[in-house]
Amino acid sequence: MAVTPFDSSLYRDLFHDAELGKLFTDSAEVRAMMIVEGALAKVQGKLGVTPEISGEAIHRASLELQIDPGGLTAETGVNAVPVPALVQAFRAAMQAPDHAQYLHWGATSQDIKDTALVLRLRQAAVLMDARLAALAGTLAALAETHRATPMAARTWGQAATPTSFGAVAAGWGWPLLDHRARLAELRPRLLRVSLSGAAGTGSALGPQATETAMALAEALGLAAPGHSWHATRDALAEFTGWLALVAGSLAKMGEDVHLMSQTGIAELGAGASDGGGSSTMPQKRNPVQPALLGALARHAATLQAAMTGALAHRQQRDGAAWMTEWLCLPQICMATGRALSIACEMAGSLVPEPRRMAANLAGDGLGLIHAEALSFALAGTMPRPEAQAAVKTLCAEAARTGTPLPELAATRWPEQDFSAVFDPAAQLGQAPAEADRFAAAVRAAP
Amino acid sequence: MAVTPFDSSLYRDLFHDAELGKLFTDSAEVRAMMIVEGALAKVQGKLGVTPEISGEAIHRASLELQIDPGGLTAETGVNAVPVPALVQAFRAAMQAPDHAQYLHWGATSQDIKDTALVLRLRQAAVLMDARLAALAGTLAALAETHRATPMAARTWGQAATPTSFGAVAAGWGWPLLDHRARLAELRPRLLRVSLSGAAGTGSALGPQATETAMALAEALGLAAPGHSWHATRDALAEFTGWLALVAGSLAKMGEDVHLMSQTGIAELGAGASDGGGSSTMPQKRNPVQPALLGALARHAATLQAAMTGALAHRQQRDGAAWMTEWLCLPQICMATGRALSIACEMAGSLVPEPRRMAANLAGDGLGLIHAEALSFALAGTMPRPEAQAAVKTLCAEAARTGTPLPELAATRWPEQDFSAVFDPAAQLGQAPAEADRFAAAVRAAP
Amino acid sequence: MAVTPFDSSLYRDLFHDAELGKLFTDSAEVRAMMIVEGALAKVQGKLGVTPEISGEAIHRASLELQIDPGGLTAETGVNAVPVPALVQAFRAAMQAPDHAQYLHWGATSQDIKDTALVLRLRQAAVLMDARLAALAGTLAALAETHRATPMAARTWGQAATPTSFGAVAAGWGWPLLDHRARLAELRPRLLRVSLSGAAGTGSALGPQATETAMALAEALGLAAPGHSWHATRDALAEFTGWLALVAGSLAKMGEDVHLMSQTGIAELGAGASDGGGSSTMPQKRNPVQPALLGALARHAATLQAAMTGALAHRQQRDGAAWMTEWLCLPQICMATGRALSIACEMAGSLVPEPRRMAANLAGDGLGLIHAEALSFALAGTMPRPEAQAAVKTLCAEAARTGTPLPELAATRWPEQDFSAVFDPAAQLGQAPAEADRFAAAVRAAP
Amino acid sequence: MAVTPFDSSLYRDLFHDAELGKLFTDSAEVRAMMIVEGALAKVQGKLGVTPEISGEAIHRASLELQIDPGGLTAETGVNAVPVPALVQAFRAAMQAPDHAQYLHWGATSQDIKDTALVLRLRQAAVLMDARLAALAGTLAALAETHRATPMAARTWGQAATPTSFGAVAAGWGWPLLDHRARLAELRPRLLRVSLSGAAGTGSALGPQATETAMALAEALGLAAPGHSWHATRDALAEFTGWLALVAGSLAKMGEDVHLMSQTGIAELGAGASDGGGSSTMPQKRNPVQPALLGALARHAATLQAAMTGALAHRQQRDGAAWMTEWLCLPQICMATGRALSIACEMAGSLVPEPRRMAANLAGDGLGLIHAEALSFALAGTMPRPEAQAAVKTLCAEAARTGTPLPELAATRWPEQDFSAVFDPAAQLGQAPAEADRFAAAVRAAP
Repeated sequence: MAVTPFDSSLYRDLFHDAELGKLFTDSAEVRAMMIVEGALAKVQGKLGVTPEISGEAIHRASLELQIDPGGLTAETGVNAVPVPALVQAFRAAMQAPDHAQYLHWGATSQDIKDTALVLRLRQAAVLMDARLAALAGTLAALAETHRATPMAARTWGQAATPTSFGAVAAGWGWPLLDHRARLAELRPRLLRVSLSGAAGTGSALGPQATETAMALAEALGLAAPGHSWHATRDALAEFTGWLALVAGSLAKMGEDVHLMSQTGIAELGAGASDGGGSSTMPQKRNPVQPALLGALARHAATLQAAMTGALAHRQQRDGAAWMTEWLCLPQICMATGRALSIACEMAGSLVPEPRRMAANLAGDGLGLIHAEALSFALAGTMPRPEAQAAVKTLCAEAARTGTPLPELAATRWPEQDFSAVFDPAAQLGQAPAEADRFAAAVRAAP
Repeated sequence: MAVTPFDSSLYRDLFHDAELGKLFTDSAEVRAMMIVEGALAKVQGKLGVTPEISGEAIHRASLELQIDPGGLTAETGVNAVPVPALVQAFRAAMQAPDHAQYLHWGATSQDIKDTALVLRLRQAAVLMDARLAALAGTLAALAETHRATPMAARTWGQAATPTSFGAVAAGWGWPLLDHRARLAELRPRLLRVSLSGAAGTGSALGPQATETAMALAEALGLAAPGHSWHATRDALAEFTGWLALVAGSLAKMGEDVHLMSQTGIAELGAGASDGGGSSTMPQKRNPVQPALLGALARHAATLQAAMTGALAHRQQRDGAAWMTEWLCLPQICMATGRALSIACEMAGSLVPEPRRMAANLAGDGLGLIHAEALSFALAGTMPRPEAQAAVKTLCAEAARTGTPLPELAATRWPEQDFSAVFDPAAQLGQAPAEADRFAAAVRAAP
Repeated sequence: MAVTPFDSSLYRDLFHDAELGKLFTDSAEVRAMMIVEGALAKVQGKLGVTPEISGEAIHRASLELQIDPGGLTAETGVNAVPVPALVQAFRAAMQAPDHAQYLHWGATSQDIKDTALVLRLRQAAVLMDARLAALAGTLAALAETHRATPMAARTWGQAATPTSFGAVAAGWGWPLLDHRARLAELRPRLLRVSLSGAAGTGSALGPQATETAMALAEALGLAAPGHSWHATRDALAEFTGWLALVAGSLAKMGEDVHLMSQTGIAELGAGASDGGGSSTMPQKRNPVQPALLGALARHAATLQAAMTGALAHRQQRDGAAWMTEWLCLPQICMATGRALSIACEMAGSLVPEPRRMAANLAGDGLGLIHAEALSFALAGTMPRPEAQAAVKTLCAEAARTGTPLPELAATRWPEQDFSAVFDPAAQLGQAPAEADRFAAAVRAAP
Repeated sequence: MAVTPFDSSLYRDLFHDAELGKLFTDSAEVRAMMIVEGALAKVQGKLGVTPEISGEAIHRASLELQIDPGGLTAETGVNAVPVPALVQAFRAAMQAPDHAQYLHWGATSQDIKDTALVLRLRQAAVLMDARLAALAGTLAALAETHRATPMAARTWGQAATPTSFGAVAAGWGWPLLDHRARLAELRPRLLRVSLSGAAGTGSALGPQATETAMALAEALGLAAPGHSWHATRDALAEFTGWLALVAGSLAKMGEDVHLMSQTGIAELGAGASDGGGSSTMPQKRNPVQPALLGALARHAATLQAAMTGALAHRQQRDGAAWMTEWLCLPQICMATGRALSIACEMAGSLVPEPRRMAANLAGDGLGLIHAEALSFALAGTMPRPEAQAAVKTLCAEAARTGTPLPELAATRWPEQDFSAVFDPAAQLGQAPAEADRFAAAVRAAP
């Protein structure tokens, strides 16, 4: 393991996400910072802040030059940010000092580093959204197929009433649609350029500071916030908070799959994916995906506490708060992104076992799961509290004597027909409709 | 101290928020649950699910009856939720069993407890929004008054470049406007009725389950989500996440005020509020408000980790996850609500000291804070990297010899006029404009 | 609910711990602070720092006077700490200004508040230790009784190999013994007097500052650390960290009990405690205790992050860091204390169901749980990797065809006797011995 | 940046710790697991569990073979743990199937992975302890040198009373000695072998399971716990909790250094290390080390919440809980280890500025910092409450009129000699003695 399994080669296939991983490498950061410097120089040249020809030259160089992150390490260790080293290396590599002097004109390190981060978060957000949509689609298919496949709903781990597997799958899916809506809402707050100079006033950007920021934003396809966000980091913490919510919703699905897959419950089979093997137990097929979902979600939720704490960003720049973001933000992105890709795989390979679901619903044959339905059926002929008390007594009798509840009920109230009461398929309530509604909502989503 | 200072009498004036506190009492919870039960009974009566006269009777009783929370303690201890005890006490108190039997018809405890929570969160959200607006207004006034009051911007704790106190106040305020926008966006996801019965399928609610939920929502002024959210808790975690963000933004203001108030910096006076006294040091006036803002924000951020973790809500109801919400959600509300009221008081009583700001900006008289401006001034006559290196050398010389930077610059480049460079008022950059823009944005806000 | 369920009347029987709760009330805090002030005055009188008669008078008054916390609220709200108000009220109540002037001589608020906290933590630690011992005893009895009761060990939720319920109970218990050892180790670091005056130098305590601290420590039965700990809070964070560890170990037991109690697994019955009832489902007996253990442990673990964060205590006193302790420490104590009392109740009322354990171990009759044992049995006659591969193939065949593994093995290797391999009682390995060792260790513990 | 700055090349000199980093690489993990497998095979051979010659062969191979972690990636991705892949690769590489079959005999993946972790944590603990000792030594030297260098103690950011810089340095150091004591106490609980087979019963280890574990422990220089700790992870969480405490103590030092280094306070100079430069401000020398200490401590404290949460480890192995450790434990080690090396560098390069300390102590010349001393001086001639009130009035007058407190006191009580009261050197209280005691304690430490 490297210091984290995200960056480990050994654990790569468990924790690493190839698509997202590309965004969080030294090279990707350096490349993104060069793009920002190049775009800045170009718009400053166009606006006449600096010579247009120099702006063009820097912009071209930003696309063509290769700067090795390894060469920036030592100076980054001194300055705490890689930008001074990058600017120096960039200038040297241009071999055109007359133009190169206009590189990084009026900007501060944080402008460059933050904007470069936002550029990569934009790609991350696109990936996340696509995965949410794909996962919702997979769950919609499950919801439809199993809209009326009866299984035992469980509360506090105990059989409660019948539900359908389709409704359960829809339950996993509903939050994903809301997460997509949340992302759409926060996106304009997140995807903003940072350009406010040394200490937030843009004084070295000259009188055209505002115009420059707007032009830079346009060039990069971002928004211009109209004020400095060097020290007000709520948009970043909002985004990571959203990521933690997403991971949490996936962990719920993971927990349910884990529990449904337990030996002795077995409502979900291991599916196409073979499950994890043991080094010593030949029979084992461990549900690895749900475990990963659980671990990744806890990780995101935990780190988000530090991200939110880093909002207490002191004065005009706070090294400790800023570095806290470096430690947390990419990990949260990776944790949630990887959780999404795992959830997509997992959802796509689930093998529901309707027979096991039915068997578990029938339980030990006592039919106690139908107690609520029985109490409501009886409430037509006696007051509900009385009905409930009578059924409670019967449940205890069933448990004590082993006589099934349907039998006890038939004996006690021979005149009533309880066939629908004890038929799971007739007791699904809104479950099939919720499954349908979810599938329809997915289809209607953008 | 009680177990928390929120519920302590001794620490009440520090941690307790009278308005919010009213929402998080046993009585308020019982009252809200009765309102939900009453409204449910009424709409069920109207829809013909239950006798209309019974619905009316229950509804009336829900408004008139007083049920003492203390009487529900013992049974709540057994059932883990207070609803069974409440239903029983409610029925008994009605003294009309024919009607009372229709109380809580088809609902489950979680429906009632969750909807009752949402009703109170609606009030909390209104309070929070009003305080955010008030605080933004106070900061807007500060921003305008001090739009061009120069002070030293600080990065990494070190003097960086000049800024204005108005820009600093605006910096505290911008996130508040975004927080208001976020609240408006999440509100429809939060303010939803829960009505999906024993295990999320609403089976005992009968064929009119959906209609009933919609009617209940209308009666309570909430939305009907169209699906169960017993086990998908993202809307609650989203709201507490928002609260944690708000508290974080206030902590930033608290940190800045703390640092500006330090002995030896003294850019902010203690103001109307006298500050906290010491039991032994007669001269002390401790800045209590910033400390509270810091502590409350950390608390909210920390507890939010548990709220997010509780999204891994198992199956159709998960006692441990649900109870985690009980432990965290009200505290986060209280922490942020109290932080808002403290921030309002604090912002309203700040006494900026422009003379101290100017003195600190001037520093030890070396003028090093103007180094960036000098380097840009020189960049007109020499390449910028050269200018920057030259100024760096001069800064070191100033520090070593005690000769001020302006003097050194005048000696070295006698032909140049640096008067604007070393005039803080001329070096504010966008600071006054940002202060103005913030004030305008506050005025334009709803 | 009050702001937390710890302080709620409605949720009292779930979350409140009567014994511990007594330590965390306003009255208990005021009372403890008075004891500290009384003891300090007495030892200062004895040492001649102040008139002996005054010291005696204050000491007597500290035991006799009743000071209402409610009367200190307003001034506490101003000063952030209750000590100035308490000193003033104490002096007034003594009605002997000549003596009363020597109250709080040379001390600072933090000395009094911290020492008063330590006095109460001493009681909390005694309670915790006693509960740990009691719980270990209960588990030792379970371990002995069920030392050889076979059940399926589960890894990743899947049946792994046989174990015994006694070994499982011992597994819950081992950490408790280590927790007791840890407590004994940290106790001397925690149970220390704080007396270092206004800013840690004890300057107003006079030349006898060190002697005074030692005498005060002796009077209160605490240690004297020999230095100020106003701003170095590691002993408090160590203690709450220990509490969080304890709660975590109890949550593991809770999780296991929850999983063993699931409908369809049912290896543990609801026992003497009836379980929580539902407001609508007559058959439900919800496992409330495991859920509480889960929620309380998460709460303690989460809050501990803030306690540890508060070690970054600035300068000689940091209001924000200190207040963070007020928000977290009592809650962590209460969470763990309550978890311990719940765990004691739960462990004492567990009803193991050996028949269900045996049935689950037998599983669907395929005997896959014995695969590892089979592979080792075969390793006597063929290389182990070959044996393992052969068994893996057989397991797959069993799953596909429904033919039990013992049958397949007998067919394939008719010459071998596998009777011990497929006998759970013969496959318990070290489980009974571990159960015995645990019981012996508990008996040997102090 | 890689996903974390710990694993980044670009940020290596800021976040990476070369010595510790070596312990947390894929290669180091594979190497350590091979050592465990080799030692296990050897002791099993010696005990006659397996052929002695095979044990020897495996042991030799474990020292000689090189297994590339990259070759294990794919299968690790399937099994979630690298051990099955490693065992297979190891066997293949031995090219001696007769011996190789006895590799990993009776063990499970977790035995190997956990014991391999413990081996590396042993090295980490040695490093940490040495750094703690070194840092304590550096602080002891500072404490001695500056035992009586007066500076202003600050509470709530405000000048409180005089202290000495030596006492402040001692304050940073005291917790380090306690941390060393804590480490010595927890070490035997942490440094234990894990060997309990597939599901904690060691059934495949045969009748000599206990003997084997003891022999393995001896071979590796670890303890044998006498029971399985597959699912009871308190020793790991205790260790990371200790790491978080250590990091917290270092963050306190970092905060103080940051605050003492602020422009306008300047009680600590930048020292040998030049401080971080800015990309645009030529004069900047940013205090990078304190910022890193703050960020790393927050990170450790935050991740510890997840480690503690992972104590709720389900059944006999819980994938999600275990993977949480993988995500957190190495990062916490790295964060604290790096914080220690930074703190050592920082402490060794601090440049105290006694003149600035004296100037800040003198403040604006009003002498308010001596108010407590004045009140105690007066308490000889009037009741203390009266003295305190009188001084409070005088402080207010001083602040209002600008007349220094000494002057006001001399006018008001012309008969008293206040020369010692207003002499910082005479008002240091126990500060020099605490500095001396700390230096002595460091010298006395092992």
